[in-house]
Amino acid sequence: MSTNKNAIDDAVVRYIAAWNETDAGRRRTLVAQTWTEDGTFRDPIVGGEGHDGIAAMIGAVQQRLPFYRFRLISGIDAHNGCVRYRWEAGGTAEAPLYFAGTDFAILAPDGRFVSVTGFLDAMPTAV
Amino acid sequence: MSTNKNAIDDAVVRYIAAWNETDAGRRRTLVAQTWTEDGTFRDPIVGGEGHDGIAAMIGAVQQRLPFYRFRLISGIDAHNGCVRYRWEAGGTAEAPLYFAGTDFAILAPDGRFVSVTGFLDAMPTAV
Repeated sequence: MSTNKNAIDDAVVRYIAAWNETDAGRRRTLVAQTWTEDGTFRDPIVGGEGHDGIAAMIGAVQQRLPFYRFRLISGIDAHNGCVRYRWEAGGTAEAPLYFAGTDFAILAPDGRFVSVTGFLDAMPTAV
Repeated sequence: MSTNKNAIDDAVVRYIAAWNETDAGRRRTLVAQTWTEDGTFRDPIVGGEGHDGIAAMIGAVQQRLPFYRFRLISGIDAHNGCVRYRWEAGGTAEAPLYFAGTDFAILAPDGRFVSVTGFLDAMPTAV
């Protein structure tokens, strides 16, 4: 299993990069490197399945919240093929609303994510 | 799906009760009410599978750490059949070492847990 510490760190870095990539072609490539073919993302607000579905979901979030960039704000905690990390977005002059969350990801044997489940820790308004 | 808010709260309450139940028979009953037949628990230190495996795992932790009781210290955050909550144990006169963690559980259609993956937020010594 390619789930050694460096490979897990790389997967999370690619994941954050995918959320921040505004070029549709490069975003689709990052999504395919980050998730398995049938990979999923679910949080309380949005969801996507498969490379096309997840890439489109991220594109829709970017359209609704332009200028928001995701930043990793925790260490990467992993055991038994499961990964936990925290992120934030916004709180800046051009992207003033503040969001933060905790993601739980399940790794495939090839080091990509089978699923990412996001929980919100901070939201501008209640979900 | 019995995954309405009250049912999810009840599942988490039973989960905490199972960890605190020192009578082996009552613990096995609580475990069976909390997890599906092939349910799992995994954290960085221990793991168990199935009702007998999980009940035995909890019993082993209790033997190693007598007098420690688990307390829920967060709200219960759930969406799409996934649940997140935080707990702590110890920090008391008779159980002085302090532990805390965040659990991520996946619900079965019947409202029991298919899997619980625990991450440690506080440990007396590094894992």
